[in-house]
Amino acid sequence: MHRIQSHGYSIEIGNIFDSSLEEILTSRFSDSKKIIIADENTYEHCVPHLVSNFGAFSNAEVIVVPAGEANKTLEMCHQLLETLSDYRVQRSDVIINVGGGMITDLGGFIASIYKRGIAFINIPTSLLAMVDASAGGKTGVDLGSFKNQVGTFSHPELVVCHPEFLETLPSSESLSGMAEMLKHGLIADADHWNALKNIDPKDIDASLIAHSVGIKNNIVLQDFKETGLRKALNFGHTIGHGIEGYFLQHLAKSHGYCVAQGMLAEVELARLGGHLSLEEAQIISNTIDQKYPRLTLESTAIETILSLLRHDKKNKGATINFTVLRGIGDAVIDQHFEHALIEQALTNCFIPG
Amino acid sequence: MHRIQSHGYSIEIGNIFDSSLEEILTSRFSDSKKIIIADENTYEHCVPHLVSNFGAFSNAEVIVVPAGEANKTLEMCHQLLETLSDYRVQRSDVIINVGGGMITDLGGFIASIYKRGIAFINIPTSLLAMVDASAGGKTGVDLGSFKNQVGTFSHPELVVCHPEFLETLPSSESLSGMAEMLKHGLIADADHWNALKNIDPKDIDASLIAHSVGIKNNIVLQDFKETGLRKALNFGHTIGHGIEGYFLQHLAKSHGYCVAQGMLAEVELARLGGHLSLEEAQIISNTIDQKYPRLTLESTAIETILSLLRHDKKNKGATINFTVLRGIGDAVIDQHFEHALIEQALTNCFIPG
Repeated sequence: MHRIQSHGYSIEIGNIFDSSLEEILTSRFSDSKKIIIADENTYEHCVPHLVSNFGAFSNAEVIVVPAGEANKTLEMCHQLLETLSDYRVQRSDVIINVGGGMITDLGGFIASIYKRGIAFINIPTSLLAMVDASAGGKTGVDLGSFKNQVGTFSHPELVVCHPEFLETLPSSESLSGMAEMLKHGLIADADHWNALKNIDPKDIDASLIAHSVGIKNNIVLQDFKETGLRKALNFGHTIGHGIEGYFLQHLAKSHGYCVAQGMLAEVELARLGGHLSLEEAQIISNTIDQKYPRLTLESTAIETILSLLRHDKKNKGATINFTVLRGIGDAVIDQHFEHALIEQALTNCFIPG
Repeated sequence: MHRIQSHGYSIEIGNIFDSSLEEILTSRFSDSKKIIIADENTYEHCVPHLVSNFGAFSNAEVIVVPAGEANKTLEMCHQLLETLSDYRVQRSDVIINVGGGMITDLGGFIASIYKRGIAFINIPTSLLAMVDASAGGKTGVDLGSFKNQVGTFSHPELVVCHPEFLETLPSSESLSGMAEMLKHGLIADADHWNALKNIDPKDIDASLIAHSVGIKNNIVLQDFKETGLRKALNFGHTIGHGIEGYFLQHLAKSHGYCVAQGMLAEVELARLGGHLSLEEAQIISNTIDQKYPRLTLESTAIETILSLLRHDKKNKGATINFTVLRGIGDAVIDQHFEHALIEQALTNCFIPG
């Protein structure tokens, strides 16, 4: 069992039956109602496993949310809050989020605002949620095309990553999560990047997950509210969120895939801006291209993405804020570029020549 | 100008033109968009005063919310969040709440969740909001009949109480706010209670307001998240919220009036439970009765109120949590009573004999 210490809680990666889950449920939350929030998929594949093996869950209430990012909305929050109220959930009760990033973001958010905040535990079941969404204390929902526009900074009581849950998922899910792991390597740890470069997503194990979460956790511990250093984690996400928002209006694409394409565009931007050598840019792009099919776009799509970028949470005034790579394992925050250069990077990457 | 230091921000009571408002707007928020949230009444009576006298507000956006507690809902939050998004409000911008407790609760809540939290300033315009709602870092909205079921603990950047704004309000509004002041005296400061006992609500001035806010602030500074001492502020609010929730389903009654009636019932409960002498209970009840017409209820109403009490935020398990007076200026938290005794107290107080 890998244990990573975060802000007053631990992130545990390994067999869930060796984790502190049972202990925390039977000590601190012995008298509390347990409310499991799951989506349709984890309700079928993961929840039965938990309920039949943990005695503390024998009286748990289970709330099932329709799967998919399209349900990470304020309307869904409202429904869930009403349900908690109907179940007479109290301040001393605990919510257990069992699912991908959509569930941990949504469930964490409603836990953080119901009765001004009740305890929650995250059991992420996708690779993306394990290495990124479930740890770091960000919760939230989307507002129209704008990702995570509404949310809180709020810590879970415990995060347990049980890699066995990943076996029930299609490989595209692992690929999506792997994008965030590659990002962790690119911004801060060349060894991690090299360890991942040639690995099949199916072979990602508890050690690699723990390594990746450790990189993120180190950054978050130093800058929880993202006033500086934590912005490094936004690499690939400025353009990536624009791409994701664009496809949300059409046919949603996975977060990891959009981040992978965002990293490609931001690597190209760094190269155009003179921050990154052509050679390193090519090494990175080739690796990403090997794993993620290159996106192709119409020029009208690029205009929409640019307008979404201008509304990014991380901006101040009219300026779009970027985290830029200077090399593999080396990122610099708060960089700005001419709009024409951003458009050029998107065109170079995604408009077939 | 009275200045009270709270968690990293100050509460200022006096002439708003002598406050730090101008300075904070022109220094820390010089490059920020200013978004004023007002209700129909403060939009008419207070906002013009601010906009014409503070240069920093010349480009402010003003969002007007329909007046009344019935609009302190998640639906209204959703609308406001969409509006902030439409205005392209960014993390570095600032919301200025101008209104009664409904506006400071609602505006503070949306500020605390929009883009995971942006800055807000409270300019309370009712006595209730000045002495209670605007300071203390609680924000929130109602969920059906349940008051403040959804919210956050979140600090404003500044609170400015400009008592001149009170002159535009009917005396019933001042009476409502006075209930919270009486409460501050009863739980912690017999001198404050005595100073208020025989005063006309119209004569409440900046000094009395500052004294009352000071009592609350002292408590909040010691126990922000209400794990102990802060529960003292709930005196009158356990039954008071039940009464308020009951009338929300019919014709809403003001918070202060409901708290006054809640204090009556909780004083009776303390007497029945042997915590408070008959003599002191009568002194308190007589004073409250002089100011607030005694509520009369049908016995079916009492059943509804009791069922609302069982769902109070402050409960743990099936037990209803009370703050109980042992004397004027002396409260004890976390007290429990048999349901029959609570019913008896309500019957003694509100069913005409």
